Amino acid sequence: MGKEITIYDIAGQLQISPATVSRALNDHPAINVKTKALINAKAEELGYRSNKFASNLRKQKTNTIGVIVPRLNSYIMSTVLAGMEKIANEEGFNLIISQSLESQKKEIANTKTMFSSRVDGLLVSVAFDTDSFEHFQPFIKRKIPLIFFDRILENSNCPAIVIDNIKAGYDATSHLIKQGRHTILHITGNLKRNVYADRLKGYQQALTEYNIPYNQDFVWETDLSLETGKEVAQRIVSLKTLPDALFIASDLCAVSCITTLKELNINIPKDISVVGFNNDPVSQVIAPKLTTIHYPAKEMGEIAIKSMINHLKGNLDLDAASAITLHSELMIRESGIS
Amino acid sequence: MGKEITIYDIAGQLQISPATVSRALNDHPAINVKTKALINAKAEELGYRSNKFASNLRKQKTNTIGVIVPRLNSYIMSTVLAGMEKIANEEGFNLIISQSLESQKKEIANTKTMFSSRVDGLLVSVAFDTDSFEHFQPFIKRKIPLIFFDRILENSNCPAIVIDNIKAGYDATSHLIKQGRHTILHITGNLKRNVYADRLKGYQQALTEYNIPYNQDFVWETDLSLETGKEVAQRIVSLKTLPDALFIASDLCAVSCITTLKELNINIPKDISVVGFNNDPVSQVIAPKLTTIHYPAKEMGEIAIKSMINHLKGNLDLDAASAITLHSELMIRESGIS
Repeated sequence: MGKEITIYDIAGQLQISPATVSRALNDHPAINVKTKALINAKAEELGYRSNKFASNLRKQKTNTIGVIVPRLNSYIMSTVLAGMEKIANEEGFNLIISQSLESQKKEIANTKTMFSSRVDGLLVSVAFDTDSFEHFQPFIKRKIPLIFFDRILENSNCPAIVIDNIKAGYDATSHLIKQGRHTILHITGNLKRNVYADRLKGYQQALTEYNIPYNQDFVWETDLSLETGKEVAQRIVSLKTLPDALFIASDLCAVSCITTLKELNINIPKDISVVGFNNDPVSQVIAPKLTTIHYPAKEMGEIAIKSMINHLKGNLDLDAASAITLHSELMIRESGIS
Repeated sequence: MGKEITIYDIAGQLQISPATVSRALNDHPAINVKTKALINAKAEELGYRSNKFASNLRKQKTNTIGVIVPRLNSYIMSTVLAGMEKIANEEGFNLIISQSLESQKKEIANTKTMFSSRVDGLLVSVAFDTDSFEHFQPFIKRKIPLIFFDRILENSNCPAIVIDNIKAGYDATSHLIKQGRHTILHITGNLKRNVYADRLKGYQQALTEYNIPYNQDFVWETDLSLETGKEVAQRIVSLKTLPDALFIASDLCAVSCITTLKELNINIPKDISVVGFNNDPVSQVIAPKLTTIHYPAKEMGEIAIKSMINHLKGNLDLDAASAITLHSELMIRESGIS
């Protein structure tokens, strides 16, 4: 890298005092427009960078917000991040983004990096297997704001942005029951995580309401991957009696399951109705089109980052708002209709 | 935020000299293991953060690499970013990620932010409408390494990581021709961008090789969105004579086009064969399964970030390697077979 350009270099070349250069670059009203234009042009020509970095060091601020997600390349997470980046960018904050790859161990390493990078705040959606809050304690101790979103740590006493997963699970299941379905298999993720535990609660609530007995064998805990969708389909056709409906907690998994079931000569939705989750674009391009729960991912990203920035600017006290719940919506298409 | 903990606080509480604390925290061999453990435990208890930030200021390094992508929430870009983050994380670098939302104006603003955030290097895939290199000049002037990937600026004299889009376009088109198809519609993106211009060149090469005349009316420039896929399907069925094949430069658009064509009673691949691009997971869950070009997105992310880090560490001179071309591959499935 070349030598760093300072206001003294600009002042020297223009034969103007460094104080005037400094004021012009900070858009001070006492400096006239022509002088400002001259100084700004020279600053640009020389490749001057405002010393925000040193100034941040004095203020103990970095204007960066850390974000840890389970995976960067999932439809929901990349959409959440797109929403966050848009707002952060408009508000003059940078995002440092890292992924835990669904491992608590990597998540712990990520929090350490975020801590020593001096992020002004941290936004986290936890890994599949995270079961400790310990690695977030340094942030609490130093009063660095911490917000969880989507997959949260309950009893952490931190603000959380979530959808109402219980209601979403209830909506999906009761829709299938209203179509006359009674043996509803629920394919879900790690039940340690709030998002899956709550969807199961909603599933159970709907069964109870319609007097359908709950059968634990009808809840399959998986990783909800594309591969799993195929395996689930094969396992289903090997059952003694076919279920008449599936509620699958991820569209990609649901769509791959439907594709395989069709290959195995199962008619969707006649033999088996299916409801997915997320409203991933893939849900609209499969035949039959997938009934699913719309997940407001972009809005979640926007609200999470706005809450963080408002807190950092002192406009909002995060401790007061312990949870923000976003509205999700059942999208009725063909796969869930008998 | 609470008061910043310094090595003097740790030294005071332990009644040890600050010099010893400093050496212990830097794992100096002269300090014995027990003392190090004691000092590290106290540092953790008090919430001490190593002053990497000030140390970086002295070294003029931030250990952060900036990445600008057109959109965070596209399958290819989120996969590239996942590959980049994994390596950056392992190598102790942070990624500051921003998106241009396909606008040169926002891309210019993003480069300014990256510049004043003092990223050690910048990785860029340009927006749909970027036609100037001007906003990257400050990086060149200050010798901050700049690498383009996927969508590059030609003649920029910067290293570029790309796939061989000409070969990919040729492979897709010649596959359709070998299946006996002759009126091949090519649905593509903005032809100003290398990725689309090169795929078109490959399409033309294949036609020439098989003595099929090139017809400009058979190349449709679009935004390749899901919505566009539907519109393209409707436009196709309104044509006087149906084309017998489609080569669509994005899977999501191809899949949405296939879905709509099927609704309009067109048999895929019998009436119209289709080849997509990217090998998006969606290509495997549609019926018929989509023939497509596998895009090595994760590998592109890994190679781009590795090249940057090696350059920053002085292990590789980027200027010497002007372009790295990754291998793409035709995935033959049902949609492209007659």
